[in-house]
Amino acid sequence: MSGSVTVVGLGPGDEALITPEVSAALAQATDIIGYIPYVARIAPRPGLRLHPSDNRVEIDRSEHALRLAQEGACVVVVSSGDPGVFAMAAAVLEAVEHGDPGWRDLDIRVLPGITAMLAAAAACGAPLGHDFCAINLSDNMKPWALIEKRLRLAAEADFAMAFYNPRSKSRPEGFGKALATLQAACGDDRPMIFARNVSRPDQSIRIVPLSAATAEMADMRTVVLLGSSQTRIIPRDGAPLVYTPRSVAG
Amino acid sequence: MSGSVTVVGLGPGDEALITPEVSAALAQATDIIGYIPYVARIAPRPGLRLHPSDNRVEIDRSEHALRLAQEGACVVVVSSGDPGVFAMAAAVLEAVEHGDPGWRDLDIRVLPGITAMLAAAAACGAPLGHDFCAINLSDNMKPWALIEKRLRLAAEADFAMAFYNPRSKSRPEGFGKALATLQAACGDDRPMIFARNVSRPDQSIRIVPLSAATAEMADMRTVVLLGSSQTRIIPRDGAPLVYTPRSVAG
Repeated sequence: MSGSVTVVGLGPGDEALITPEVSAALAQATDIIGYIPYVARIAPRPGLRLHPSDNRVEIDRSEHALRLAQEGACVVVVSSGDPGVFAMAAAVLEAVEHGDPGWRDLDIRVLPGITAMLAAAAACGAPLGHDFCAINLSDNMKPWALIEKRLRLAAEADFAMAFYNPRSKSRPEGFGKALATLQAACGDDRPMIFARNVSRPDQSIRIVPLSAATAEMADMRTVVLLGSSQTRIIPRDGAPLVYTPRSVAG
Repeated sequence: MSGSVTVVGLGPGDEALITPEVSAALAQATDIIGYIPYVARIAPRPGLRLHPSDNRVEIDRSEHALRLAQEGACVVVVSSGDPGVFAMAAAVLEAVEHGDPGWRDLDIRVLPGITAMLAAAAACGAPLGHDFCAINLSDNMKPWALIEKRLRLAAEADFAMAFYNPRSKSRPEGFGKALATLQAACGDDRPMIFARNVSRPDQSIRIVPLSAATAEMADMRTVVLLGSSQTRIIPRDGAPLVYTPRSVAG
């Protein structure tokens, strides 16, 4: 008997952002595997085994999921956001490629979710309404020089940008360097959006001109968005609306 | 009495990809506004007015929504995918910025959805598992030279890429030009994924080396993904899995 591994996205936090497809997968699971705070979002029930694990053990966690599936379990690996965006789907597939050849025969599926940048964008309007890029600012798994290069090229391409993992206790310096690069490369005062705990009760959205952005405005619970040169702010009595127009003049 | 405009994403097609948040907004609506095929996805019910409209009238449609809300209606503007990604949210905000100043006082919200590129990525693994960009290949609203520039810079940045609106009857030439640019700029045979009718019963996923990609492989129902230089294919008995690893060697 052969089981399955389904990698699902729980969205940024609000239960109302979990797709029915993901809820159905969770309801059929025998085993839930994931980072401690994401597994904590799953309601216990008889017959469901919860396997929370610590951060930075993504490959161990993936191999655990694949071994359980090989024994016949119906395993769901939980990510926040979308599992394919800086989350568990790539880790599980890395484990498949380099692991037991039998794992390739398992039923392996990835179910999309609401990724943080899109929830953050929606919360302030449509700042990613035109061409954009998504960059993970952690240099745990790539050289900092590559991050810098991508920031400069993204500015030259005039993409709107979304930044994941801007800052952590173990990497206090990177985001400040990234801001300096962006401030030099963009050469204007387009809006930067700091979206913390998006979709949760304590969500905060802070919109500042790029020149006024500082490293302390972000932490690991923040996704950061930066407009393109075309991005607009609509002032009003409540929170302003930010959007990037669909058209660029010829 | 003042109403509301809620811009929602219906996802790529499968009802199981509509978030409960969006379903709740639809259940409270008095008026649904959108492109004909998207409004056709909404079940009629007593008290709900449906206002389908043709393609390429995004600003008219947005102004209609805002006027109805000003009269007290609870309007939901429906997009496919995520409304903030090449969809209706930016159009509504353009209308707000340039229209009746009173519209700024309305309750305007954007609710995220599953955008096509993330559903397409999930359907074949995790090709957007590392830094990536999203580019709309239609030159209806921006100069073709800007698209070419962004393609070259995205290749230089070694982003994985997602392409929306690759090809239409009115623009038969553009995608062929884009492919030629990418083939020259990338200089390798990374995988390109043609995902048509993602999440629908007739979904098709075709994976080809970039050198073998041709313009005829895409139409307006296709979202196209291109790996980075790091993207891997895992062959197996069933459909192969494609993913972009989380790490890049220093």
